[in-house]
Amino acid sequence: MWGLFLVNFAGLPECKLVRQHANFRYMPVRSSTFHLLPASRLVSAVRPFFAALVLCLLLAGPAPAQTVPDAPAPEEAPNVILMIPDGFGPASVTMARDYLRWRDGQKELPYDSLQVGSIRTYASDSYITDSAAGGTALATGTKTYNGAVAVDTSRQAVATLLEGAERRGMSTGLVVTSRLTHATPAVFSSHVPDRGQENRIARQQLNKDIEVMLGGGRRHFLPQSAEGSAREDDLDLLQAAQDRGYEVVQTASELSRAGEGQTQENRLLGLFSPGHMAYEIDRDHTQQPSLAAMTETAIDRLSGNGEGYFLMVEGSRIDHAGHGNDAASHLRDILAFNRAAKSALEAAQEDDNTLVVIVSDHETGGLTLGRNRDGEGIYSWRPETLAAVEASSGAIADSIRSIRSTGASEAAKRKRIAGTLTRLTGVQDVPTEIVSNLMAVEGPYAVGNAVSPLVNRQALVGWTSHAHTAVDVNLYAYGPGANAFVGHHDNTTIAQKLANLMDVDLESLTGTLRAGRDAR
Amino acid sequence: MWGLFLVNFAGLPECKLVRQHANFRYMPVRSSTFHLLPASRLVSAVRPFFAALVLCLLLAGPAPAQTVPDAPAPEEAPNVILMIPDGFGPASVTMARDYLRWRDGQKELPYDSLQVGSIRTYASDSYITDSAAGGTALATGTKTYNGAVAVDTSRQAVATLLEGAERRGMSTGLVVTSRLTHATPAVFSSHVPDRGQENRIARQQLNKDIEVMLGGGRRHFLPQSAEGSAREDDLDLLQAAQDRGYEVVQTASELSRAGEGQTQENRLLGLFSPGHMAYEIDRDHTQQPSLAAMTETAIDRLSGNGEGYFLMVEGSRIDHAGHGNDAASHLRDILAFNRAAKSALEAAQEDDNTLVVIVSDHETGGLTLGRNRDGEGIYSWRPETLAAVEASSGAIADSIRSIRSTGASEAAKRKRIAGTLTRLTGVQDVPTEIVSNLMAVEGPYAVGNAVSPLVNRQALVGWTSHAHTAVDVNLYAYGPGANAFVGHHDNTTIAQKLANLMDVDLESLTGTLRAGRDAR
Repeated sequence: MWGLFLVNFAGLPECKLVRQHANFRYMPVRSSTFHLLPASRLVSAVRPFFAALVLCLLLAGPAPAQTVPDAPAPEEAPNVILMIPDGFGPASVTMARDYLRWRDGQKELPYDSLQVGSIRTYASDSYITDSAAGGTALATGTKTYNGAVAVDTSRQAVATLLEGAERRGMSTGLVVTSRLTHATPAVFSSHVPDRGQENRIARQQLNKDIEVMLGGGRRHFLPQSAEGSAREDDLDLLQAAQDRGYEVVQTASELSRAGEGQTQENRLLGLFSPGHMAYEIDRDHTQQPSLAAMTETAIDRLSGNGEGYFLMVEGSRIDHAGHGNDAASHLRDILAFNRAAKSALEAAQEDDNTLVVIVSDHETGGLTLGRNRDGEGIYSWRPETLAAVEASSGAIADSIRSIRSTGASEAAKRKRIAGTLTRLTGVQDVPTEIVSNLMAVEGPYAVGNAVSPLVNRQALVGWTSHAHTAVDVNLYAYGPGANAFVGHHDNTTIAQKLANLMDVDLESLTGTLRAGRDAR
Repeated sequence: MWGLFLVNFAGLPECKLVRQHANFRYMPVRSSTFHLLPASRLVSAVRPFFAALVLCLLLAGPAPAQTVPDAPAPEEAPNVILMIPDGFGPASVTMARDYLRWRDGQKELPYDSLQVGSIRTYASDSYITDSAAGGTALATGTKTYNGAVAVDTSRQAVATLLEGAERRGMSTGLVVTSRLTHATPAVFSSHVPDRGQENRIARQQLNKDIEVMLGGGRRHFLPQSAEGSAREDDLDLLQAAQDRGYEVVQTASELSRAGEGQTQENRLLGLFSPGHMAYEIDRDHTQQPSLAAMTETAIDRLSGNGEGYFLMVEGSRIDHAGHGNDAASHLRDILAFNRAAKSALEAAQEDDNTLVVIVSDHETGGLTLGRNRDGEGIYSWRPETLAAVEASSGAIADSIRSIRSTGASEAAKRKRIAGTLTRLTGVQDVPTEIVSNLMAVEGPYAVGNAVSPLVNRQALVGWTSHAHTAVDVNLYAYGPGANAFVGHHDNTTIAQKLANLMDVDLESLTGTLRAGRDAR
């Protein structure tokens, strides 16, 4: 009741708007929420609102609505869900929103109303970061060189939020769609001077007592004798994981059955593909779980611990689609990330002591919505054209490689390539030069890169790079302590703020790591 | 004293950081500020802090620092300075910051710490807005079609914040570097169905009782008989302005002397160029005042009114440089805008009852920092190369046109063009194809557009369009009511929030306008 009264007093018109758009920021003060709270928590829920009410009565005039609901500070260190949509720049945000407005009339993304600012992302050795340096900043609060995995510019280990959480007795988890050993999950769970050392990273990850790890990259956990292994030694890390009490799952259905029939929950390791998991647009739902399903499983597992948890969730392949300038795959992986974010925000809303921070590590591809056509700038772009695309540029490239490898005549191959492109992209008139290019190019990414322009031209989407760009990326926060994130920050500041809220001393832990007490 | 104690209590480490970075948000609680306040204002300054202190004591745990200093609500409707850096996308922000970090080691822009979110900018008839529809959203809270100047989709007038301010007895001002009749100033001060109707716009502007108007565009105020006039009638609007009590100034020195020797201050009309004012990089400081100087003059004039003021300041030509993909001119106009923003924020800090909102209307050019080189993405861009550029692409184009029009041999012309490019851009090895292109292209913008790639390639800056793009743009707020702007919003929401804070009823005023009572 007090909470509701407060909202009426402080800015009802805004809260109305907020409700229409499912703004989670204000959820805790909605009267309906209180029905869900046990009596003991009702008291602590009401106290800050009463305090805020006193403030409002003392202040003349209408108080801005945002100041009050965000004010309650955590009485205990909150759970933290740090969500990283990799390679998700400002234009990616608009792309997803414009698409959903076209498709569903949906005006806002699940986290739009939670935006509090942005971060700058540069690395110690370049104006443009890679995911290792960008991730190290987010995971450790340390500015470092491109390629560095949780080490500083002297290549010395720096403690991570995940390590700090483990040290405090919190449960921890990593959920990604890349290889588990790829840069972003690696910077939370290992220390190596070069992100390419993924076999070493896998070994370190198993020594961290992480309760839940879900993603791709099985090849770095298999002994070299096993088919598809990328290891150069005989270590069987899947076996080692089981020896350490991990339940190991490898398919979507195994994930959904995980923990069944066990009286006590094991730790959980899910490795759903040899390399990266599939792009969302290509995903076989019977084989690989969605990012949202993995996120929900992780939150379920971790929230059992009374000491709280730290979970990092990465929408990894948003970035990879950006590298390939593959607009439709970029979009679909963002939508998959959005569903995971919605799950996390709903869990945080129910839990009442969970901070969700959503922040990318950098932009990828130099994406722009709108571009020149025949040298003239066009005041439009066409999200609807992306709906017709049915496969990633990489998957389409595989089909084209198959066609090229047949014994058919060049004319027949050209016709089949054009037909395949129309079928899988929805573009009716495939330009001759695109087909010619696809008959000619070689190299692992070149064919896929030659597919992407077909859709980009139709959608009026521009890209300037196959690498990352320097633009700031958006910052979103919901839950206890969220207000501390308002503003523009250096990327290293996020880890420092999270460490403060989690009551973790990263500097001291770095000392411990370096003294070798935690060396593995 | 109370203010200082509060900061210590609520989040000293952050405030320290804030002080290092000259964060204006926190300025009012700095003890040194109080020395500047007259005794009568000290009381009202202390009251909200005392209230906030009570809140902090009631709340267990450390309250996030942001919640408290922003909380005090205005006791009277605040002055509003709405600053619009036209065509200033997220990458433009990073560009300016990276450049200043390279040049001065300066880590943040004057408004970085004031970022509260972003806005989406689409028009009613396109995913990509123009400055008329984007400006109309900011000025009136109405979503409309591209080209519309403060009219809705039915081409009916909708009331603007400036008109609402005048109606409330507030003083008003417009400060721009474009023609005063260009889209952004026009949407605050006129109603026409097509932004091209600048002569009509000029006439309406003079009927609005606007206290200060400073910018370019004299050609729309001169009778058709006058040299350089763009009017198609015999109206002499400069004379009409004087008849209405305006002091008319036309140079930087006239502006600095404006008001001298007058016992009562006239209204002020400054028209410093026939068309747009110069790009900052080309500006003759003896002829045209800086945006900061115009902003300071306007604030000085307007702040004398006890009923408060509404001032719109536009960094107009940031956009134009974006259209020309002219990176150095884009940057210099941003830096000029930053100095104006700094002036406005300092005035707001002194005044204690001024809300400053900084928000762009859209992105221009599809700017990216980083780009492909020979088909490969590069993890770097080079802000330092922009320091060597001494003229806008348009001004360089003028030199090249002069060279082309001489009777010299083609070889001699090519050599002179390459030499001119090196002298004015700092690029040593001018590629042959750039010179060939500059010898061939025709059309008003084509030569300038052919100059820009030289610097862009060297700086590793990418552009995808000569038009605008759809990406969200940043939102910044400082002062009373600033907290109401936290989050991501539709562009129409900004005007609605400002109208609420200014106690202006735009809907009712629109009714009045349409009833013809205000029709001119």
